[in-house]
Amino acid sequence: MARFSFNISATDGKARTGAIAMARGVIRTPAFMPVGTAATVKAMKPEDVRATGADIILGNTYHLMLRPGAERVARLGGLHRFMNWDRPILTDSGGYQVMSLSDLRKITEEGVTFASHLDGSKHLLTPERSMEIQRLLGSDIVMAFDECPRADGSRDAIARSMAMSMRWAQRSREAFDAGEDHAAGAALFGIQQGALDEGLRRESADALTAIGFDGYAIGGLAVGEGQEAMFATLDFAPDQLPADRPRYLMGVGKPDDLVGAVERGIDMFDCVLPSRSGRNGQGFTWSGPVNLRNARFAEDTAPLDPRCTCPICAKYSRAYLHHLHKSHEILGAMLLTEHNLSFYQQLMGAMRDAIGSGRFATFTADFRRDYFQGRSP
Amino acid sequence: MARFSFNISATDGKARTGAIAMARGVIRTPAFMPVGTAATVKAMKPEDVRATGADIILGNTYHLMLRPGAERVARLGGLHRFMNWDRPILTDSGGYQVMSLSDLRKITEEGVTFASHLDGSKHLLTPERSMEIQRLLGSDIVMAFDECPRADGSRDAIARSMAMSMRWAQRSREAFDAGEDHAAGAALFGIQQGALDEGLRRESADALTAIGFDGYAIGGLAVGEGQEAMFATLDFAPDQLPADRPRYLMGVGKPDDLVGAVERGIDMFDCVLPSRSGRNGQGFTWSGPVNLRNARFAEDTAPLDPRCTCPICAKYSRAYLHHLHKSHEILGAMLLTEHNLSFYQQLMGAMRDAIGSGRFATFTADFRRDYFQGRSP
Repeated sequence: MARFSFNISATDGKARTGAIAMARGVIRTPAFMPVGTAATVKAMKPEDVRATGADIILGNTYHLMLRPGAERVARLGGLHRFMNWDRPILTDSGGYQVMSLSDLRKITEEGVTFASHLDGSKHLLTPERSMEIQRLLGSDIVMAFDECPRADGSRDAIARSMAMSMRWAQRSREAFDAGEDHAAGAALFGIQQGALDEGLRRESADALTAIGFDGYAIGGLAVGEGQEAMFATLDFAPDQLPADRPRYLMGVGKPDDLVGAVERGIDMFDCVLPSRSGRNGQGFTWSGPVNLRNARFAEDTAPLDPRCTCPICAKYSRAYLHHLHKSHEILGAMLLTEHNLSFYQQLMGAMRDAIGSGRFATFTADFRRDYFQGRSP
Repeated sequence: MARFSFNISATDGKARTGAIAMARGVIRTPAFMPVGTAATVKAMKPEDVRATGADIILGNTYHLMLRPGAERVARLGGLHRFMNWDRPILTDSGGYQVMSLSDLRKITEEGVTFASHLDGSKHLLTPERSMEIQRLLGSDIVMAFDECPRADGSRDAIARSMAMSMRWAQRSREAFDAGEDHAAGAALFGIQQGALDEGLRRESADALTAIGFDGYAIGGLAVGEGQEAMFATLDFAPDQLPADRPRYLMGVGKPDDLVGAVERGIDMFDCVLPSRSGRNGQGFTWSGPVNLRNARFAEDTAPLDPRCTCPICAKYSRAYLHHLHKSHEILGAMLLTEHNLSFYQQLMGAMRDAIGSGRFATFTADFRRDYFQGRSP
């Protein structure tokens, strides 16, 4: 088997469906990757994550380097063995979360110095160290180290940041190739930056393509710009990236975000939304999101979503989920996270089927009619 | 099948093993009942509770009458359907938890008036209302309504309280028999009181036996008196109760408590300890309890208990459990609760096997040698 291959089996408009083949398993695309921040998809056993239909999960370099530590994970046999997940894992580079979570950041050409949000300890993250950490974790898909600038910065600031990220992408490529990742079957993805600016996105895409990566991510979106601006950017950004490589939209999103992004040629997604919402009492359904804490569910014996095929909807009522969430029971977080992740995978599966049979436009129209039911996005 | 039957298949000293047969399933004895306070065994799916080996779980009348409410549970089809557990459920009477959890209690011959710890709302719990609530929940084993007095009260205070509990036991019997529980296959247990006093325990046992119950619980122990005093009481209390009926020691206990109580003729137990400890990072093993938060486990690749047959010990290391508990991850509570409940069931199974094959004395000696390893209980 090839180390990494991407096969597009069908297209419908700009939407594509296919499969990424890797040593640890096949990833059906468009793919949604549940987020396993601290070596756990929160409130889920890994076998239940797999049973939702997930082919790959995401791990966070920033969290894992701080606790339990990348060298420690390596000594314990790597992230897969540590957390009992034997399929592919994509790790982010740490760049985004250093900016959003850590304290006392200082950014130079070398990298980012920051203080841990856990204990204040000082750390330096560089392209080389990010590659090393992701190698120590045993990542299957390694992300290049980038800077994710503020979306409201000036064009100059965004251009300077993007240019540095492209130099860091080159250093990531070199460090990755010098390591043992390649031989171990890992792939390296570059990350396009440039915020909402078509010209900067083009420059970034050209720089990444010149370096050459197994796949290409679109970074710097879903940072507060709103769906309209995100979709406007996705109207051109994916087309700037190589058509024969997977395109990964980082940190997205709501079900309607996923549908709109797949329409625009995206193949991969990750987001904490379905799992975080599950812990907070928000359930996703084909008829839109619902808040299970709402008193109207107290005696509702229906399943959360009558169209859902997940085991939670087969076994439990809205009334029970309401009771668990009102009572702050851990089982409430467990059951609603499992439903939400399963719903997301059912949505991805439905999109793959629709693209494969050339009826994606019908699918998206039906989805939006049911999901919004007259409400606006 | 009989509505309720108890068959003792073997005895070894005072220890007994057998089975309770009920409409919803067979309960192997000695039995440990996981506590499902608020219609959930915390952090566990019901199918995983069953997979640990649990034949029956416990539900709390006090919690359920306040939230979601007994009438509401009845409208939703009963507790079994609500929480997706189709095997027997024992419900307590609410008497103990009204005293330990609620505010502003007033006890009269009629019953207990109290204020909810959730919202301050006023409630009256009587033997008749307790029977009604347990019927509305759909309980399989209903507990008589009793008062659990302070263990440090005077003999006179304990005697007066016990005498009232016996009058409440009579009213519980009459209310139960007047309801639909009996026809629906439910059983009613009486509760012996009398604290540590042999004479009062005898009076209580005689009063209960005269009324007649399907099984007999020993109440008023494990309330701070210490293991030595509890065992001293269990040296006589079980013998005062009918030998051909199940004897249930309420709210007990640590693994060594269970072993010592089975030696003294107890058939049933319930306790929050394995599940609560699991949420707090304490794991039970054949070599004694361990605190998974301890730094010495940070790189320990061994399973929590090499002798344990649970799926958690098969799949995860102490290092991973340590990481999850240090990181306050929900999965840490989930995995350790499952292990602990499984360990408790393995302990009960080992006791049943040892009693059945006439080697219980050897078992208890081996258990204590391994469990305490030179430490004192």
